[in-house]
Amino acid sequence: MAPIAVSLGDPAGIGPEITGKTWAGRYDYGLNPFFAVGDPGSIRAIWDGPVEKIESPDEAESVFSRALPLLPVESGEAVTPGQPTPEGARCALDSLELAVGLARSGAALAVVTGPVSKSRLYDIGFSHPGQTEFVAERCGVSRDNIAMMLAGPSLRTIPITTHIPLRDVPDIISIEMIANKARAAARGLIRNFGIASPRLAFAGLNPHAGEFGALGREEIDILEPAIAQLREEGIDAQGPFAADTMFHPAAREKYDVALCLYHDQALIPLKTLHFDEGVNLTLGLPIVRTSPDHGTAFEIAGSNTANPGATIAAISLAAYCAEQRILHEGSIAA
Amino acid sequence: MAPIAVSLGDPAGIGPEITGKTWAGRYDYGLNPFFAVGDPGSIRAIWDGPVEKIESPDEAESVFSRALPLLPVESGEAVTPGQPTPEGARCALDSLELAVGLARSGAALAVVTGPVSKSRLYDIGFSHPGQTEFVAERCGVSRDNIAMMLAGPSLRTIPITTHIPLRDVPDIISIEMIANKARAAARGLIRNFGIASPRLAFAGLNPHAGEFGALGREEIDILEPAIAQLREEGIDAQGPFAADTMFHPAAREKYDVALCLYHDQALIPLKTLHFDEGVNLTLGLPIVRTSPDHGTAFEIAGSNTANPGATIAAISLAAYCAEQRILHEGSIAA
Repeated sequence: MAPIAVSLGDPAGIGPEITGKTWAGRYDYGLNPFFAVGDPGSIRAIWDGPVEKIESPDEAESVFSRALPLLPVESGEAVTPGQPTPEGARCALDSLELAVGLARSGAALAVVTGPVSKSRLYDIGFSHPGQTEFVAERCGVSRDNIAMMLAGPSLRTIPITTHIPLRDVPDIISIEMIANKARAAARGLIRNFGIASPRLAFAGLNPHAGEFGALGREEIDILEPAIAQLREEGIDAQGPFAADTMFHPAAREKYDVALCLYHDQALIPLKTLHFDEGVNLTLGLPIVRTSPDHGTAFEIAGSNTANPGATIAAISLAAYCAEQRILHEGSIAA
Repeated sequence: MAPIAVSLGDPAGIGPEITGKTWAGRYDYGLNPFFAVGDPGSIRAIWDGPVEKIESPDEAESVFSRALPLLPVESGEAVTPGQPTPEGARCALDSLELAVGLARSGAALAVVTGPVSKSRLYDIGFSHPGQTEFVAERCGVSRDNIAMMLAGPSLRTIPITTHIPLRDVPDIISIEMIANKARAAARGLIRNFGIASPRLAFAGLNPHAGEFGALGREEIDILEPAIAQLREEGIDAQGPFAADTMFHPAAREKYDVALCLYHDQALIPLKTLHFDEGVNLTLGLPIVRTSPDHGTAFEIAGSNTANPGATIAAISLAAYCAEQRILHEGSIAA
C-alpha cells in the first residue's frame, strides 16, 4: 500500500512537533508508513529527531524505519514556533494542496492534515470556511455533499453547520441541508467503517429539543420532516433528541453517529470525552482525509509539550478507513 | 437542624419513585433527614416502601428512621405513572410552592425540587420559564440576580440564558446580563461552597470563541467588556474561551465554574460527564434550593428503573451548602 501523506499545517503551530513525535512512536502504535509534507525548518525548529527529505512518496516507505520522510514545501523564511506569519500560512496551504493532490493521484493512501490557523489563512485571502471545504473543492465535490465527522473511541459526531457565527445557524439549516449531510453520513459509515446499516441520531437545536414547540420550532419545522424523509429512503434516522442527554455512556450505545446542528454541539461532547484522541474525518470525498481534532496551539508551540495523541489516532483511522474501502470496494476511489 | 423539604414534582413522572429510593438509601449515603411534599397516591402507585404522613416538618426527623415522611398535597385523582394530567401539574406546582414556603420560614433547612414538565405547567397557565424563576419570585428575588448552577463531581456550569429558543440567545445576551450572572455566581460560590476567591471561566458564543471576530462578534462586543468590568470589580473572570476545549479534565482544573451562554452549552458537558449525579443549584436566593438535573422521564415512569443518583446528590449538596452558610454566616438566610 502507498504511504499516508501528513501535511504539517502552520509552520509556527504544533503540527511539526506532533508529527515528529508521532513518527517516534510509529512502532509503539503500529502506524502505517507516512511522510510529512511541509517546511523542513519548521520541524528543525522544535524537534531533534531524524528527518530525511524525499522527492516523491514512493521513497517514503524505505526511509520510514530510520527517519521521518519529508516532502519539502519551503516557507522561504526562518520559523519561530508560536509566531505565525503570512509566509507560514501560505506554506501551510501549499502543503495541504500538495498532500491532497498526492492522495488524489493514488501516490498517497490517504491524507492527514495538520492544524492551520483559519484567521491567518483568511489574512492571505483564503476564501473557504476551513481546510475541509478546500479539500472538497480540490476533489471536485460540492461542499453540500460532504460531512465533517469527529471520531473518538466512544463517540462520533457530525456538525451539520461548522465555522459560522451561532446566530446564523437557525436560518441556515434546512430540510435539504440536513438530509444531504445525513446521506453523506450514512454512506460514509458504510464505506469507511464497514457498518452495514448505520444508526443516525439527530440532536435538537433548542433546549429540550424545543419541548413540543414551546422552546423553539426548528425541531417541528425542519428536523422532523428531514428525519421522516430519510426514514422513507431507508436510512435509520432517529430523533430529534434533547442534545444534553445524548452523550452519556448509555445514550451513546444507541447510535453510530450523532448529527448536530452547530459546531460546538458536536465538538463539546467529543472534546470533553476525547480531547487528546479526537479525529476529524471528512465523509463524501473520493480520498480518505483525516485530521487531528485540535488547533495550532500557538501558545504552546516550541515548548515541547504538545500531545501527539490525536495525530496518532488520525493516522490510524486514515489507514483503517482506506483498508475498509479496499476490502469492500477493491480500491480507495469513489 | 431542620429537615430538608423534597417536592415530588409531577405525580406521573419519576419524582415519587426516586424519592422513595433515595429514602431507602438514606443511611448508605449518609443523608440528612428529609421529608417529601406531594401526592400520597403518586408514591403508592410505584413504590412499596413505608410512607408516613406528617402534618408539619418538625415531625419529619422522628419518622425518618422508619418511613418516608410525607407532607401531603393531594392531586385529587388517581395517578397513573407516565400519564401526566392537568391536575397532576397543578399538584406539582402546589407542592413546590409549599416546599419553598417552608424553607423561607426556616421550617425546612433547604428545598430539593423534583422534576416537573414545563409543557404541562404551561398548559395550566404557568407563566415562568421554569421552576427556578418561580422559586426566585416566591423568595422576592429578581430573576436577573439569580443563577442556575449545574454541579457534578468534577464540573460546575452556569447557563446565562436557559429555557429560550437558541435563535433568541445572541440578541438577548448583554454585558449587564452576563455581569449580573457572574456576580451571582461569584457570591454563590463564596456563600454555598466556601470558595474564598472563585475562578470564573466564560465560554464564547461562536465556534472557536469567534476566532478574533471572523466567526462572530459577540465575544468582542459583549463578553470581553463584561469580563473586563468584572475584573475591575475584583472578580477572577477569565475568557472568553472556545467552548469545545473548556471541558476536558485538564481544562476543568483551571476554574471553579464555567459560565455558558445557552442551555445546551452548559448542560451538554455536565450531563455527558455526570448524567446520573448532576445537581441543579439556584444561586442568589435567600434559601438553599437544589434539584436533580433531569426531567420527568414519563417514558420510564412506573417501570421501577429510574436512577435516584441525582436526587441523592441534590439532597447531599443542599445539606452541604446549608452547612457552609451556617458555618460562615451563622444562619441560612441572606
